[in-house]
Amino acid sequence: MDSHRPGDEPRSLADVSTPGRVAAPDEAISHEELALAARNHGLPLEALRYDVTPPGLHYVLVHYDIPPADADTWTLTVGGHVRTPLALDLAALRALPPVTHRVTMECAGNGRARLTPRPVSQPWLVEAVGTADWTGVPLRTLLAEAGVEQDAVEAVFTGADHGVERGVEQDYRRSLPLANATASDPEVLVAYAMNGAPLPPQHGHPLRLVVPGWYGMAHVKWLHDITLTDTPFTGFQQAVAYRYRQASDEPGDPVTRIAPRALMIPPGFPDFMTRTRVVRPGPLRLEGRAWSGRAPVTQVEISTDDGHSWEAAALSPPDGHAWSWRHWHADWTATAGPHTLTARATDAEGTAQPLTQPWNRGGFGNNLVQRVPVVCL
Amino acid sequence: MDSHRPGDEPRSLADVSTPGRVAAPDEAISHEELALAARNHGLPLEALRYDVTPPGLHYVLVHYDIPPADADTWTLTVGGHVRTPLALDLAALRALPPVTHRVTMECAGNGRARLTPRPVSQPWLVEAVGTADWTGVPLRTLLAEAGVEQDAVEAVFTGADHGVERGVEQDYRRSLPLANATASDPEVLVAYAMNGAPLPPQHGHPLRLVVPGWYGMAHVKWLHDITLTDTPFTGFQQAVAYRYRQASDEPGDPVTRIAPRALMIPPGFPDFMTRTRVVRPGPLRLEGRAWSGRAPVTQVEISTDDGHSWEAAALSPPDGHAWSWRHWHADWTATAGPHTLTARATDAEGTAQPLTQPWNRGGFGNNLVQRVPVVCL
Repeated sequence: MDSHRPGDEPRSLADVSTPGRVAAPDEAISHEELALAARNHGLPLEALRYDVTPPGLHYVLVHYDIPPADADTWTLTVGGHVRTPLALDLAALRALPPVTHRVTMECAGNGRARLTPRPVSQPWLVEAVGTADWTGVPLRTLLAEAGVEQDAVEAVFTGADHGVERGVEQDYRRSLPLANATASDPEVLVAYAMNGAPLPPQHGHPLRLVVPGWYGMAHVKWLHDITLTDTPFTGFQQAVAYRYRQASDEPGDPVTRIAPRALMIPPGFPDFMTRTRVVRPGPLRLEGRAWSGRAPVTQVEISTDDGHSWEAAALSPPDGHAWSWRHWHADWTATAGPHTLTARATDAEGTAQPLTQPWNRGGFGNNLVQRVPVVCL
Repeated sequence: MDSHRPGDEPRSLADVSTPGRVAAPDEAISHEELALAARNHGLPLEALRYDVTPPGLHYVLVHYDIPPADADTWTLTVGGHVRTPLALDLAALRALPPVTHRVTMECAGNGRARLTPRPVSQPWLVEAVGTADWTGVPLRTLLAEAGVEQDAVEAVFTGADHGVERGVEQDYRRSLPLANATASDPEVLVAYAMNGAPLPPQHGHPLRLVVPGWYGMAHVKWLHDITLTDTPFTGFQQAVAYRYRQASDEPGDPVTRIAPRALMIPPGFPDFMTRTRVVRPGPLRLEGRAWSGRAPVTQVEISTDDGHSWEAAALSPPDGHAWSWRHWHADWTATAGPHTLTARATDAEGTAQPLTQPWNRGGFGNNLVQRVPVVCL
């Protein structure tokens, strides 16, 4: 609770906001990590049963505070290197032809708390995912209306949430290359509705960016400004955070699209405290979802012996939602004793989930296979 | 992740579901506690700004799994010691005159993770609260229709969530004394709507009990049966869990109504990782909510010097919602340096929040004052 000691009084932001770090070997989950876990939340894995995640079950990560927001007075500005700067209220956005995309969104830090060594940040286990129907205006429509100038290379998106992170005071801000911002597939949305209702506060009320196929950090919430720039954006969330790095002093590669992953609905019923699953002997259907932000999922395999052997699961047919997860199932006959169940996705680029941890200092893009311990009694 | 070792194979539920326990001195948060924190979630404290908590921000605790539920085929049965057993579908319940109550609900284990020593369970810090408008049918209406027999003493409520807890396989089940079940104030509801919409899955879709003034464990979710009994219910959640105990071998007192508590919206802006708050020098409004399930809140005091001195906050006028939190505010002039802010509620029974921890083995009813460290820069 205390980040300061008597006689050691904080005099600058750097004193209350320290550098990113990796936990020491065997260092346990801290109260700071727990405080993030209590605020933010994942998808309870049994909620993988829903094609579209109901309100309140979709994962949420908020960097700073959920800002107060009034949809009646909210204005989105589009400026910088454009011919006609825009200022649009919600009514003006709703008057444009709406588009809805079903999108599976995942936090770039999903799985971080299982890494060894553990990057110290939001301690996700495996559940930072959700799928929603997002409705709004295509970003390319707004950019066409504003008239992007020839020299523009990126669009920079500013949200209303304000805080400090590793010593840098900031509004949350991210950019997209112009080619991504204006693409038709995946089509980026300025969204004002989630599952047919106005955005909830924690999902960016009243406006957010939705970037199908990309990790959550790209989907800027509480969006109020889009600025076209003639140089690449080098702000904190672009150039400092959300980079794949092995050492803290390297520039690293940017975190962008979602790596393939499959998750299983834990079968049977749980113990309250350990979450160990209990199943009965006999035939049982295993099922879950699989997704990739890079290419369509083409295969899901399951293992019931902790990865020693694998067999193909059945994938549901494509449903026209290219950026949403796919359902899969496989049948298993449970026998008495402990088992470790695993599922593994492969996408059309041929990328399969790894069986050993992909590690980087931020704990990003870690798509190590899920392990579900069950006991058959 | 592993609750079993090779050569030590689980042969019964007792092997996968161990007794309740208290953490050893300095024992850190375990992965099991973290897994509960990732599934369940609290109210981000800035959401205290809303009179009624928007969907997805209200705290959620699910003992086992959120069960699959189909509102179209759901049936609520009322039986046991009644003259006319009932079986009601949702249409039949909606056809009865609806009642809406605004209710502040809090988990009985709120604050547990700050206790010393720490009871090992869902590791709430201070945020397990929320306020909703619940709409449904008064329980007393249903009981009058069924005709409670003279010898009935309790109503037992069964939910559809199934799991094992401390070795006991169970559906979640709790009871109320008949006097509470049939009271007019607080009036117990069989609720089918939250904030004007059907219940979300995690809040009991399609039916739950709402018991204004009581901790969350009484508000049985996924409710499908009410049985009137002529003896007090002695099931796990009534006689084993949710008791105030200093030692594990004593019967303990039952956990019932919510103790008074005030929470503050943390002022200023946060550091992402430490959640330390940064404020600017000068005048600042402190505000928050206060509630008690025992009697109306009559006073909120704030301290800006870690509890050394106190002054009265202004309470908003009563708004007719007797079982909902009240807004409070106080003005403060921040000066450079670190400060610890605190608020303390007192209710009409004269009970004030304690300044030292009230401890019991389950970590229940702990209404120790919140401490909000801020740094003024």
